[in-house]
Amino acid sequence: MTLKLYSMPSSGNSYKVRLLLALMETPYQHIGLEYETEAIAQAHADAVFPLGKMPVLELEDGTRLPESNAILCYLADRSEWLPRDPVTRAQALGWMFWEQNQHEGVIAVRAALLKYASRAHLATPERLAELLDRGHELLALMNSHLEDRKWMAGDRISVADISLYAYTHTAGTYGGFDMSQFPAIDEWLGRIRGLPGYVELDDIPA
Amino acid sequence: MTLKLYSMPSSGNSYKVRLLLALMETPYQHIGLEYETEAIAQAHADAVFPLGKMPVLELEDGTRLPESNAILCYLADRSEWLPRDPVTRAQALGWMFWEQNQHEGVIAVRAALLKYASRAHLATPERLAELLDRGHELLALMNSHLEDRKWMAGDRISVADISLYAYTHTAGTYGGFDMSQFPAIDEWLGRIRGLPGYVELDDIPA
Repeated sequence: MTLKLYSMPSSGNSYKVRLLLALMETPYQHIGLEYETEAIAQAHADAVFPLGKMPVLELEDGTRLPESNAILCYLADRSEWLPRDPVTRAQALGWMFWEQNQHEGVIAVRAALLKYASRAHLATPERLAELLDRGHELLALMNSHLEDRKWMAGDRISVADISLYAYTHTAGTYGGFDMSQFPAIDEWLGRIRGLPGYVELDDIPA
Repeated sequence: MTLKLYSMPSSGNSYKVRLLLALMETPYQHIGLEYETEAIAQAHADAVFPLGKMPVLELEDGTRLPESNAILCYLADRSEWLPRDPVTRAQALGWMFWEQNQHEGVIAVRAALLKYASRAHLATPERLAELLDRGHELLALMNSHLEDRKWMAGDRISVADISLYAYTHTAGTYGGFDMSQFPAIDEWLGRIRGLPGYVELDDIPA
């Protein structure tokens, strides 16, 4: 019996969980369901996902946990990946809530508008320009935070870095953001990419 | 020396923290800064808020913690308000990330579009109709979850309930959602309102 992960290969939220599992060397069974396929439509019809979205981590007793950042915290619990100091842990969680409330809704949304034909009608020039400006503000905040520290919270890598890495590392290539403005983010991305066990977004388990 | 809370009296995210502090009978100093005032503009200019938003909890050593749900977890740490069982804790966190990623961006956003004159230009009939439909879907998910349980995660009230209470309890009056469709939510709201120490959104500390 092992952990089972329902994940969308192209999705940053799903990638977060695959990345942490790889870095922690935790074995798991992977069930990949891609966006806009019959398989994912069937899974939604069967109500496989508690909150209607992937990733979902299925535990050995069949319990299904939704929400990427909550899954990261669950997997990291009692390890160095979840800061043990209460204040550092609160700071890590703060960045993760910010990631879901601010960062994802701008950085990931702009990338999705550019990528998926089904969303092209929403990709007006005004909306894309607004998302570009707002995304640069959010990335500037991260860059400034990383100018005098190596990791988002505390003095070692944590779930907050994994959470923010997912959509930040493709913000330039997929989202069209100008990452040359953010050298501290670039160095931080490089530190994560260099970790033993690191996997890319498109390294999909068999 | 006590905790200091920077909070916006009218904001649900700030109310979450005031509500938990009241229910836990934790003393604190309150600094209220209202939306669209000179005082809040000055605080932003002085970079008082780490991520540019309230609420912010200032600890005794001056550390400022942002993000309402991260603050709830910090305050609840080592108490019954943060579930001790890892799976239940992951479920509570899952609902809190969902609250920031889905619920707030629909339920609270529709209320804000209706309330603030500065956002009236965004309150087109199409946008309001879209938010109404999506909000009813999200509330239906909560209602269905609450049909056979008293609390969002586990068998006692937790930070997940406090987090979701804030914008759900005003979804009808401020957001224009039809709450008569959601009797299980109505009973859950009543259970929270009946707790010893409960404070209303507009019970602002001196």
